[in-house]
Amino acid sequence: MSVLIVGSTALDSIKTPQAENPRLLGGSASHAAVAASFFGPVKMVGVVGDDFPKKYVALYKKHRIDLTGLQVQDGKTFHWAGEYEVNMNNRRTLLTELGVFEKFTPHLPAAYKQSPFVLLANIAPALQHHVLEQMTRPKFVVADTMDLWLNIALEDLLRLLKRLDGFVLNDSEAHQLTQEDNIFAAMKKLHHLGPKYVIIKKGSHGSILSGPNGHFICPAYPLPKVVDPTGAGDSFVGGLMGYLSTARGGVDANIRRAMIYGTVVASFCCEGFGLNRTTRVKRVDIDKRVAELERLTRF
Amino acid sequence: MSVLIVGSTALDSIKTPQAENPRLLGGSASHAAVAASFFGPVKMVGVVGDDFPKKYVALYKKHRIDLTGLQVQDGKTFHWAGEYEVNMNNRRTLLTELGVFEKFTPHLPAAYKQSPFVLLANIAPALQHHVLEQMTRPKFVVADTMDLWLNIALEDLLRLLKRLDGFVLNDSEAHQLTQEDNIFAAMKKLHHLGPKYVIIKKGSHGSILSGPNGHFICPAYPLPKVVDPTGAGDSFVGGLMGYLSTARGGVDANIRRAMIYGTVVASFCCEGFGLNRTTRVKRVDIDKRVAELERLTRF
Repeated sequence: MSVLIVGSTALDSIKTPQAENPRLLGGSASHAAVAASFFGPVKMVGVVGDDFPKKYVALYKKHRIDLTGLQVQDGKTFHWAGEYEVNMNNRRTLLTELGVFEKFTPHLPAAYKQSPFVLLANIAPALQHHVLEQMTRPKFVVADTMDLWLNIALEDLLRLLKRLDGFVLNDSEAHQLTQEDNIFAAMKKLHHLGPKYVIIKKGSHGSILSGPNGHFICPAYPLPKVVDPTGAGDSFVGGLMGYLSTARGGVDANIRRAMIYGTVVASFCCEGFGLNRTTRVKRVDIDKRVAELERLTRF
Repeated sequence: MSVLIVGSTALDSIKTPQAENPRLLGGSASHAAVAASFFGPVKMVGVVGDDFPKKYVALYKKHRIDLTGLQVQDGKTFHWAGEYEVNMNNRRTLLTELGVFEKFTPHLPAAYKQSPFVLLANIAPALQHHVLEQMTRPKFVVADTMDLWLNIALEDLLRLLKRLDGFVLNDSEAHQLTQEDNIFAAMKKLHHLGPKYVIIKKGSHGSILSGPNGHFICPAYPLPKVVDPTGAGDSFVGGLMGYLSTARGGVDANIRRAMIYGTVVASFCCEGFGLNRTTRVKRVDIDKRVAELERLTRF
């Protein structure tokens, strides 16, 4: 089955203590779509300007991502610039030029509307709603978010939570949303807001699932060096949904393994700037790290 | 086989946002010895003053801890008072009265000197050295430490590292000691300082082993509420060494499971003030949580 992914498509200029990389392919939809593409067919919805490099369109196509839903508009592509501190944990935004993204309204091509798996990657909750309104009974809907929407679009987000099967957020967002420091207490409160599956991302500490079959403690893949963590969260949820959309059996039977696959794609994402490393990965490399994670957690 | 545990024996007055608990049984040796006692025979070395409550001696004895090495001296028992902030992550020391602990020199009774497993729980590195000097070819020596010794006794600690099989420390101490933010890079540097086994504790994020058979990613046991984390690290390493000292087969075959057992004892420690919860636990409760951790991490 295919997965529909809606989110931002952007150019990211990323500065770290080691290097500067201008105008890389970025955005939540780009990272998530490439991550999902390792597992099965992906339909993407997004918007770019007329300055969007042809090589990035070619990169999407190399990953067999369906671009029928990618709007190309007069104007500039969303451009984000950010800087990481030495420890790669703190990120500072240097510049945000919304360009054509400012007035983006996701339109679903007819062939997209019956996608069984829907990933509402990080984007304004109002747009995430707008996508769901165009869908015909999706099987499994997951949304990601970011602190910005908790601050400026909380009501939209809370309404969205009631329409989701799964909700993915990081630990500080979970704390902000629930006022709970304890991650397990926070997940309990998040279930009360709607979603049956709650996944909290903890960066290098892995992630935790709370679902109908209880919790799953998902490790991070051990990386001795992080080059650029931008897009790791999007890669995680993209890989997760890509795997789920093609796995045999129901969500409950596959979601743990799906998180592991998402974790592994996210680990590759961190090993290069933007999508540089991820787009060089083969499925066999992913499977190798999944097997490694099995060995690393067995006792 | 038995495990020898040397460390501090103290009275802890612990304040949290919820409650105040004066003069609980505390200290690294107390927590570690009780934790190890669930698995096999424990020999403890420490010092208390003549004010040390009889009920705490009875508590050690209930856990069949060999107290031949517990010195009772004229004067006051080491008394520590501390306060936790709302999120239980930040601890503030309110008072430290060293009492008889100030001039403590660990003396090993003859029957202790051939203990195959030695845990040098958190205590000044010079005293940890002094213990090793009295030992006859121990099989497996592990030390714990704290930031204080990194600040005031770094040379002693670095010399100690060369005499250890295993070294246990938390993530911020590992960072301080190696100047590495990345935990896997830090473990590599720590191996170069001596120990074959390095375990980094990450609190509610679990712990990581680096050893001859590679890494083990050890989860924390999920706790929806932490009452008092004091002694959790000591309980972890105590449970680990207790399990190892009685498991059949070599260290490599058992160390992962030993970490899991340590993790579970530490989880009980966090559920009560001081040793209140730990001392009410039965081995069957521990085994139940170990089985639960297997289910929580399987994929």
